[in-house]
Amino acid sequence: MSASTSKLAPIPAGSSQASVAEIARRARAASRLLAKLSNPQRNEVLQAVAEAIEKAMPQILAANAADCRAAEPAVKSGDMTTAMLARLGDQQKLANMPGYVRSVASLPDPLGKRLTATELDDGLTLYKETCPLGVIGVVFESRPEVISQVAALTLKSGNAVILKGGSEAARSNDVIVSVWRDCLGQFPAVPADAIQLLHTREEFTELLSRDRDVDLIVPRGSYELVHFVMRNSRIPVLGHGEGICHVYVDAAADLDKAVAVTVDAKVQGPAICNAAETLLVHRAVAKQFLPKVATKLGEAGVEIRGCPETMPLLAGTPVVPATEKDWATEYCDLILSVKVVADEDEAIAHINQYGSRHTDAIVTEDSKAARKFMDEVDSAGVFQNASTRFSDGYNYGLGAEIGISNSKLHARGPMGLEGLTTYKYKLFGNGHTVAEYSQGLKHFKHRPIK
Amino acid sequence: MSASTSKLAPIPAGSSQASVAEIARRARAASRLLAKLSNPQRNEVLQAVAEAIEKAMPQILAANAADCRAAEPAVKSGDMTTAMLARLGDQQKLANMPGYVRSVASLPDPLGKRLTATELDDGLTLYKETCPLGVIGVVFESRPEVISQVAALTLKSGNAVILKGGSEAARSNDVIVSVWRDCLGQFPAVPADAIQLLHTREEFTELLSRDRDVDLIVPRGSYELVHFVMRNSRIPVLGHGEGICHVYVDAAADLDKAVAVTVDAKVQGPAICNAAETLLVHRAVAKQFLPKVATKLGEAGVEIRGCPETMPLLAGTPVVPATEKDWATEYCDLILSVKVVADEDEAIAHINQYGSRHTDAIVTEDSKAARKFMDEVDSAGVFQNASTRFSDGYNYGLGAEIGISNSKLHARGPMGLEGLTTYKYKLFGNGHTVAEYSQGLKHFKHRPIK
Repeated sequence: MSASTSKLAPIPAGSSQASVAEIARRARAASRLLAKLSNPQRNEVLQAVAEAIEKAMPQILAANAADCRAAEPAVKSGDMTTAMLARLGDQQKLANMPGYVRSVASLPDPLGKRLTATELDDGLTLYKETCPLGVIGVVFESRPEVISQVAALTLKSGNAVILKGGSEAARSNDVIVSVWRDCLGQFPAVPADAIQLLHTREEFTELLSRDRDVDLIVPRGSYELVHFVMRNSRIPVLGHGEGICHVYVDAAADLDKAVAVTVDAKVQGPAICNAAETLLVHRAVAKQFLPKVATKLGEAGVEIRGCPETMPLLAGTPVVPATEKDWATEYCDLILSVKVVADEDEAIAHINQYGSRHTDAIVTEDSKAARKFMDEVDSAGVFQNASTRFSDGYNYGLGAEIGISNSKLHARGPMGLEGLTTYKYKLFGNGHTVAEYSQGLKHFKHRPIK
Repeated sequence: MSASTSKLAPIPAGSSQASVAEIARRARAASRLLAKLSNPQRNEVLQAVAEAIEKAMPQILAANAADCRAAEPAVKSGDMTTAMLARLGDQQKLANMPGYVRSVASLPDPLGKRLTATELDDGLTLYKETCPLGVIGVVFESRPEVISQVAALTLKSGNAVILKGGSEAARSNDVIVSVWRDCLGQFPAVPADAIQLLHTREEFTELLSRDRDVDLIVPRGSYELVHFVMRNSRIPVLGHGEGICHVYVDAAADLDKAVAVTVDAKVQGPAICNAAETLLVHRAVAKQFLPKVATKLGEAGVEIRGCPETMPLLAGTPVVPATEKDWATEYCDLILSVKVVADEDEAIAHINQYGSRHTDAIVTEDSKAARKFMDEVDSAGVFQNASTRFSDGYNYGLGAEIGISNSKLHARGPMGLEGLTTYKYKLFGNGHTVAEYSQGLKHFKHRPIK
């Protein structure tokens, strides 16, 4: 996050005059009210917000243009990259906000879903039902339209959100948050404090200690940002670390499919976390496959870093010798490390040792080999004959994505509305006491209810 | 954990000669093998372990007797309580181990459960399936039979476990772990390192930093132990903190049920986390209900700490005035704080402010009031007309319990085998690439498969 433009953000934000403790307390209070709203009520609010954003689009675009102008000195001085400036000023993404908010409104209700129902005994019935987490803290960089994406998901799932954006987008962020808060304030049952905005990194760092009032922190941004949050939070954090994804071309691979999957996994979005960084090739097909795929990768401008066994097989192609460090590197670029392996076991062991447990694919026509790969590779996504780039909440049909989790707990892989919920056990009795059961006067039935 | 007996534990344990890094690495390797076992294979091992424990029971009881003898000086010097000694030397619990292991074997397979199935497009199908977490670290105090409980649950769920028990139970722990490891070692496909034992607090503290090889830490023991682990772990921790549970007697309560529920919630297991610590009474029924319940509580030896409004209503009963601190205290004893509230909203607000989000009950015949309480109280268990003491994995029909989680993430409330699993997404394609979809040549169908 660039600090150089922070003093150019004079617009006072709704909640930012308050202390962080007060902001967190207000978010908790708002979350209590949100938990009472029905799905039709939440959807009505989202539809109204979408309309309000459309009406306010001229002001939003003007604020965004001001942010971009204010960022120019930082770009000239090298404090901000042109890629960051492009993300900051992406007017198409801002224009897409109302459509996104409406699409979230149309998703199924994630709350009040009955996960299990059990008759413990006569007149004693237990239900496990989904409910909101409560208060979510989200930190993001550069892209102001993220506010509407995140706020739509948190409101749909009955959660309050505290946002912290990049200071370079301060004007855009303030206007967008104001539109949301003003719209929410028009509904008597809906608290405007369901959405609040922090303005400084210090405020956000302080928020990380409010573990009584904040239930989850979601960092969306660079590896450095995610790890800063993980190191400094007393609140649970779900955010992805690295995406070191693999494509393994098995002895029983269809080599045309293998070329298509490898090229797509590397080239179609090289800076995205689900892009492949390493290609593993079974020795039995390496001689035939590697020149074939190298030609296509070369056409797409991909640099190959090969293991000692790869080098002679690609004698006519420029290949950089791979070092140990390559196997553990997320390039985020048109670079692919390539290793020849003796068998599937070596491929699986390599992935479990060097991978980041994100997404890994096998290309094979052998369903037994595919099953083995899927069972033994310890990653959130394990694919047969499909590009690692499919690992995404929209592609998976989750409707929306708050992030991709590398954690094995709570939410793993693409995280949609379900990741913003928890559950509670509701037990209905008729004066039942445990003493009757411990004394053997009554006995549990534990009958599942369909 | 008492350190005074640690030098009296000379039995060398299978794995304890290795460094913690090596132990963690072995556990990870073992977890890879465990993930390949079928449910019948896992059950066969558990049945064999149950038999081996039965055969080894004389040695186990002898080691346990030696532990108890060695602990006598610590009890005399006051370093160890007699309650701890009783837990350490509970021979009935040791004798129950084989039965417990067999009951875990009989539970349904928690692995390979299909959570969702979606046809993303023709020939491109996504499954979300449960799988083991990998490696679990468990620290516990005093009670050596916990080893067999935990090891049965982790093996059943395909996880490797690293255990750390109290030094006062070192001999018992070593013998029990040896029985498990020897039995596992007799199965060619099963790694003995699925179960390993640490011996010192320093080793366990070091384990808390092995976040690459350990997926989850479960502390079972005192509040101090749980919070020590939470403060010092780089690995996710699931353990319960406090259990400040409430019974709220509504205006529409059946007062006989209210007495039964209140007495059971306080008296039936006062040292257990799901016991009630505070009774909230609606003003409309306080005058009638409080003397009634106070008589029964008094008979059970319960000390009452009352709010200013409670005091005159219990003029004939010895009541200690409650202070602000009482509302936030887990007594773990026969003490109950009592507060009269103006309405249900005040009761809910009190619980959300002072409670520990564990389990809270409303006594009422008004189903609307019950629904409101259940929706608005932010706790893992919300009960109508039933004692808070029902909040337990066995009572809930989970079959077994590794602990009770106060976290809202991953596992909330009583945590059975499901809490020891995660999931992965398995995607089956036929050479599918994301480029075809981003270029609009193909379109997702996202059809749920029943």
